[in-house]
Amino acid sequence: MTAYDSENIFAKILRGEIPSNRVYEDEDTMALMDIMPRSDGHLLVIPKTPCRNMLDASPAQLAAVMATVQKMAQAVKLAFEADGVTVQQFNEAAGGQEVFHLHVHVLPRHEGVSMRPPGAMGDFDQIAEHADKIRAVLAQS
Amino acid sequence: MTAYDSENIFAKILRGEIPSNRVYEDEDTMALMDIMPRSDGHLLVIPKTPCRNMLDASPAQLAAVMATVQKMAQAVKLAFEADGVTVQQFNEAAGGQEVFHLHVHVLPRHEGVSMRPPGAMGDFDQIAEHADKIRAVLAQS
Repeated sequence: MTAYDSENIFAKILRGEIPSNRVYEDEDTMALMDIMPRSDGHLLVIPKTPCRNMLDASPAQLAAVMATVQKMAQAVKLAFEADGVTVQQFNEAAGGQEVFHLHVHVLPRHEGVSMRPPGAMGDFDQIAEHADKIRAVLAQS
Repeated sequence: MTAYDSENIFAKILRGEIPSNRVYEDEDTMALMDIMPRSDGHLLVIPKTPCRNMLDASPAQLAAVMATVQKMAQAVKLAFEADGVTVQQFNEAAGGQEVFHLHVHVLPRHEGVSMRPPGAMGDFDQIAEHADKIRAVLAQS
């Protein structure tokens, strides 16, 4: 297992060195908008403590992340009146991982609408609107 | 939320009404080979108790499933000398779900090898060989 690199983008976000659009936070986890959304409302859940991915996460880190993933899946379904939710988690580059801090993708989905291809930067105003929608649902729960 | 349908294929597998290739089992969860593997060693983790997907799962069901997912991710990485592992979980048809009993996909991945398209039935002898490899790793852990 490659060592954790504390210069990854999520580590920098957690240290407040670069901005992010956060929709949820608790003691152990944070949910933030993906800046390359593959569907409207695409967000990421990360642990606040370092681990590279699911292969080296502690059971406690993984459990905390997944509890937040469930909360966010339920929230985005409501916020976007989604028909479904896709959850993805990638481990190591061959598994699809690009940032080496454990993160889980949560994507609201609608019937007949494919996910957009990966790698395209989203519109920041639109992402901010989507974040507001999610926060509004979370504020009611 | 649509009600749980106890005639889904995983419910039948859990009742022993149809066969499956199980590689791991504990009190709360089971891991079995996907019969339409999108990579060699593609397996599924399911809870033994009914829930439709992550949207209606209890926190305890989800936590138990994810603990087994982590164990299986580590095991398939070793069993197939994989470079990475992809984890997917689909909620409702729009989210990619086809069987309506919570399940998490665990796919060993190798550099430069794409996942195969979904929906193609695998070779059962090969799947059995892959299951043996995973069991051998789990027996050593």
